[in-house]
Amino acid sequence: MIQVAVMGYGTIGSGVVEVLETNRERIRRKTGHEIAVRYILDLREFPGDPHEALIVHDFSVIEKDEEVGIVVEAMGGVNPAYAFAKACLLAGKHVVTSNKALVAAHGTELLRIAGEKHRNFLFEASVGGGIPIIRPLTQALAGEEILEISGILNGTTNYILTKMDREGQAFEEALTKAQELGYAERNPEADVEGYDTCRKISILTALAAEREVNYEEVSTEGITHITDTDFRYAKELGTSIKLFGSSRMENGRASVFVCPMMIGPDHPLYSVSDVYNAVMVRGNMVGTLMFYGSGAGKLPTASAVAADIMEAACHMEDHIPMGWSDEKQVLSPMKEQRFRYFIRFSGSASEKLPDVEAAFGKVRAAELPGLDEFAVVTGEMTESRYQKLAAAFGDIRQMIRAGEIIC
Amino acid sequence: MIQVAVMGYGTIGSGVVEVLETNRERIRRKTGHEIAVRYILDLREFPGDPHEALIVHDFSVIEKDEEVGIVVEAMGGVNPAYAFAKACLLAGKHVVTSNKALVAAHGTELLRIAGEKHRNFLFEASVGGGIPIIRPLTQALAGEEILEISGILNGTTNYILTKMDREGQAFEEALTKAQELGYAERNPEADVEGYDTCRKISILTALAAEREVNYEEVSTEGITHITDTDFRYAKELGTSIKLFGSSRMENGRASVFVCPMMIGPDHPLYSVSDVYNAVMVRGNMVGTLMFYGSGAGKLPTASAVAADIMEAACHMEDHIPMGWSDEKQVLSPMKEQRFRYFIRFSGSASEKLPDVEAAFGKVRAAELPGLDEFAVVTGEMTESRYQKLAAAFGDIRQMIRAGEIIC
Repeated sequence: MIQVAVMGYGTIGSGVVEVLETNRERIRRKTGHEIAVRYILDLREFPGDPHEALIVHDFSVIEKDEEVGIVVEAMGGVNPAYAFAKACLLAGKHVVTSNKALVAAHGTELLRIAGEKHRNFLFEASVGGGIPIIRPLTQALAGEEILEISGILNGTTNYILTKMDREGQAFEEALTKAQELGYAERNPEADVEGYDTCRKISILTALAAEREVNYEEVSTEGITHITDTDFRYAKELGTSIKLFGSSRMENGRASVFVCPMMIGPDHPLYSVSDVYNAVMVRGNMVGTLMFYGSGAGKLPTASAVAADIMEAACHMEDHIPMGWSDEKQVLSPMKEQRFRYFIRFSGSASEKLPDVEAAFGKVRAAELPGLDEFAVVTGEMTESRYQKLAAAFGDIRQMIRAGEIIC
Repeated sequence: MIQVAVMGYGTIGSGVVEVLETNRERIRRKTGHEIAVRYILDLREFPGDPHEALIVHDFSVIEKDEEVGIVVEAMGGVNPAYAFAKACLLAGKHVVTSNKALVAAHGTELLRIAGEKHRNFLFEASVGGGIPIIRPLTQALAGEEILEISGILNGTTNYILTKMDREGQAFEEALTKAQELGYAERNPEADVEGYDTCRKISILTALAAEREVNYEEVSTEGITHITDTDFRYAKELGTSIKLFGSSRMENGRASVFVCPMMIGPDHPLYSVSDVYNAVMVRGNMVGTLMFYGSGAGKLPTASAVAADIMEAACHMEDHIPMGWSDEKQVLSPMKEQRFRYFIRFSGSASEKLPDVEAAFGKVRAAELPGLDEFAVVTGEMTESRYQKLAAAFGDIRQMIRAGEIIC
């Protein structure tokens, strides 16, 4: 019998309890252990809840109970999640979390302590919700040199962009709808500004590079400036716009960025819609892989937490080598990255296109009726070259980076 | 230092040697072991090959060399692969294979021997080439009750169907093209008749059910009867046609089948084209996941073999619990399965549609100009009900099972 404590009885925490109950027999058979929830830590009371008797308000009860072998951190945020997770590891307990903010900010230290204590700090659910991505990256692809990871890692923004794409909604309208449905928070900043995606791609990059990635150094651009007009051009060009978290790795250097990307139908992530997430991985031998599924939601995320609990249960006395070292991964600056660029210029194409092509080279152009503007997609160039060329044009209304497949 | 023998120096075998060399340093760092190829077993000579000195023709050299800890079986076919793999396990060596025919026919016994000998019989590369699917099924999704697995598991047929879909080619024309490109064998039967897919879905089902699945009991229909006319209707209906290997599991019963399926753009497998493979998994908690990548090819498949070699290297003295038991999985008969049906009738819709709807209920109908026929997509019904209803119509030209998303 392995005793588990669940910290945080919100959506994820209650989902974990539900998954452990629903699949109890299967989990027992696969791990050889009965997994029992002994405590649920939450500040609130839950009168009438079937697990009311397990609720505790004092973390030290969990920390001090030597029978608790595995602690699930499902509180979210960095504080007090960090202090609690660290204390649990130091007390010799395994810690499983779904909290990307915690992992991105303190993963290096928590992984180190886990190693020193011969325990495990596991976080499959922190990226891609129910999608198995961390385990494949660290196990099935352990022998690969990872060249690129690109993901649609945030369900809220993907839902908003899908609504804009399919129904021609403006950003604000789609955001309001997402909030009504509970897909977006009242304060949507972490999602729509790309901060959530930034933490997730930083975690994936750190796993692939086996070095610490400072998420604060990652160039991060959200979707608040994307308009319905952009999507009208996207339709005209046979493309779509998605919020990408990407890293490209070469010769020990990594470049990591979060930004909206215009991609064509040949891109594996093109058809990932609504609240779904997907992660594309390119390895030097295996080529392109994609992992797709529910990136959030109570039960999918809880399922990933349960898989980590099972893994910990099978390794109660040993540390599974995984994660990254204290060494810092050097990140290439964004200005060295190469993209195509979707650019909207005010004025008419017939008049200005020659100037645009004189500067940017051969482009693909599109015009929409009734707008005093036109758009182009350039060939590939570095970000610094784009910035330099764009500075000479005073009439740029929009720029969205584009994949290589659409020209 | 761990000594490896590679049996079969064809596409996969030579790919394995290449991956182990190219990613040698990474593999050493991750496993803590130097992995060295000591023998390559092949009947042929390879004069001038950089590994010529490693070639042996006599299996007993490998079997008897106690320093060989891991044997890669990349010969294909059941004989002598089966005898060699079994002998290696009995001699206390780990066996890694990419051979679905071997795993489908003798996996139960080889897994049992591996367990008894505290060794591992690993076969990630036998399904989906480089796509990590077996490890996620047995590890990341270990706690899930798997409800459905549906895959596009054969790159050759997917290439042919993609050509028919996009370029309006006839089956024979697309097959010839696939043969020219080396995607299809001179004798394409195993691919186009669905036998290859049948073995792969049987393996995946056995892993999910943890019981032996007899692939000979799986209802298997290939793609040789699919015509360009079917694809013209598919376009008209906004659908596509893919060769599915599927299993649906409920209450300890499994139904497993291989057949062409008409699916709409909302299906996760709709956009899987060319030689790519993908596996969709539906779990009771995690919902729908999809794993996508190169289902065949030298290096992707070899990459999956290398991952298995690394796993064996990390567990040289212990058996990783995985696979299935000797117990036989009961398979539900095909006639109990429920599908929608795409049916082409000779004659005109205006004349015959009332009769069709009187029998099959409300349908979605389509007609193509210049053909004395029409097509319908029915609502969902069991296969036995379809068979009974269809028997009353003497003018059915084609039937393709359809997913639930297109009516």
